[in-house]
Amino acid sequence: MRVLNNIKEVRDQVKKWKYEGFTVGFVPTMGYLHEGHKSLIERAFSENDKVVVSIFVNPMQFGPKEDLSSYPRDLDADSILCGNAGADIIFHPEDKEMYFEDFSTYVDINGLTEELCGKSRPIHFRGVCTVVSKLFNIVPANRAYFGEKDAQQLAVIKRMVRDLNFDIEIIGCPIIREEDGVAKSSRNTYLSESERKAATILSGSLEKAKDILNMGERNCEVIRKVIIDNIAKEKLAKIDYVQVVDGLSMKVVEKVNKSILIAIAVNIGKTRLIDNFTFEV
Amino acid sequence: MRVLNNIKEVRDQVKKWKYEGFTVGFVPTMGYLHEGHKSLIERAFSENDKVVVSIFVNPMQFGPKEDLSSYPRDLDADSILCGNAGADIIFHPEDKEMYFEDFSTYVDINGLTEELCGKSRPIHFRGVCTVVSKLFNIVPANRAYFGEKDAQQLAVIKRMVRDLNFDIEIIGCPIIREEDGVAKSSRNTYLSESERKAATILSGSLEKAKDILNMGERNCEVIRKVIIDNIAKEKLAKIDYVQVVDGLSMKVVEKVNKSILIAIAVNIGKTRLIDNFTFEV
Repeated sequence: MRVLNNIKEVRDQVKKWKYEGFTVGFVPTMGYLHEGHKSLIERAFSENDKVVVSIFVNPMQFGPKEDLSSYPRDLDADSILCGNAGADIIFHPEDKEMYFEDFSTYVDINGLTEELCGKSRPIHFRGVCTVVSKLFNIVPANRAYFGEKDAQQLAVIKRMVRDLNFDIEIIGCPIIREEDGVAKSSRNTYLSESERKAATILSGSLEKAKDILNMGERNCEVIRKVIIDNIAKEKLAKIDYVQVVDGLSMKVVEKVNKSILIAIAVNIGKTRLIDNFTFEV
Repeated sequence: MRVLNNIKEVRDQVKKWKYEGFTVGFVPTMGYLHEGHKSLIERAFSENDKVVVSIFVNPMQFGPKEDLSSYPRDLDADSILCGNAGADIIFHPEDKEMYFEDFSTYVDINGLTEELCGKSRPIHFRGVCTVVSKLFNIVPANRAYFGEKDAQQLAVIKRMVRDLNFDIEIIGCPIIREEDGVAKSSRNTYLSESERKAATILSGSLEKAKDILNMGERNCEVIRKVIIDNIAKEKLAKIDYVQVVDGLSMKVVEKVNKSILIAIAVNIGKTRLIDNFTFEV
């Protein structure tokens, strides 16, 4: 497995592979890889002849008060994980390779980003769409793999690919969890021991919502209240949002009568964690 | 030569060509083709094995009070011109093939669009960048050809291609003029006989600016005044803008000390015409 820092090198290699008739799977990441990323890479490996993983902590998707500078990085560990999972190339560009000083283009989405993470992170999805557009142009893969943990991101990228006619298939992959239910996340590393225990409140609360949905509850406010009340029991937890939205449009819904996404963001101490599940009627 | 209306068909054909080792040139247009477009297609034909011309009057780049509904169309004549100039395919999609009802993604540029046409047509370049991004993803060509008549558009597209890493070379081609100097434009068809005569004021005024530049004038306000005073002599003409800008950043400059673009937009009756030239010190 090779680590390439240069746009031209990775593009030329991927184009060569495609010219030779190989299919290429692509897993864009911000590094500090965990079992969740590993599952994406393994899925890409199982469905494609060649696999490219990008590792780039994209400054454009972080707000001024967010954790860009402290975001965890460990290229050595990432390289081992990528190699074991079947990646052929890690694309690991420096900031200046991706953004010229007079960079002035952006890709943005209307409509899907008013709720959920888009509400508390107003410039986040512009940064995501812009960097993912760049990466898709640099790595002209057949398929790209994203985790369902970032459910709104997945919906936004699918919409962007449809709208701008990117020639790539977007594949969402299930959330990978720790044994106690906490969704795997590079940000879990920020948590102290007590915070790590408190973090189970996210998946635990979603389980309670799942239970009442399975018992037939269809009123979204009731479902929200069950989650909110449960999170309130955990003193280290502070809710950013608890929302029930349409699974495609990301608009708030009142009744459960189609595919819905139940998504939450909760601050545990200074660490913002997200979790979600999709429910089909 | 074939006319294709369907995204999948044109993309599959271009991909097949590239897989077979052919180079592909692409000329995006809004149709009603004239000698200016013909020069782009011929240039594409001379530099590539295959040539695709798109004809799509893009609703997104027209303002609410602009000439979308009256924009001239003539596919039969366009097909003859394309065939004669060496095109292999015309891509001619309907609006609904390009824009779903819940279309919600856009590509935008900061910085290059505050002056010139961006000032009087505030949503224009967002529409241009969005549709050109779509077209580049649909027609994965090696080279795309644009006229220098739309100088700001050319600068914007070059910047977008650089920033978003589109894998395509952008080639600007010289303005083609009528015998009396008027730049060829699909919109010239709107002009009455007297307006057509009046339209020579654009190129005539630019010639005067060229003369004083060649004589050594370097003060941009003096150059602007020569153009403005000359246009004032034509009663049918009403200035939208007369600007001297940096050729790359499209920022207004005061002194001519590098590559500058002198660009004008003038309403002749109800028809807005543009013209420009680049001057290198």
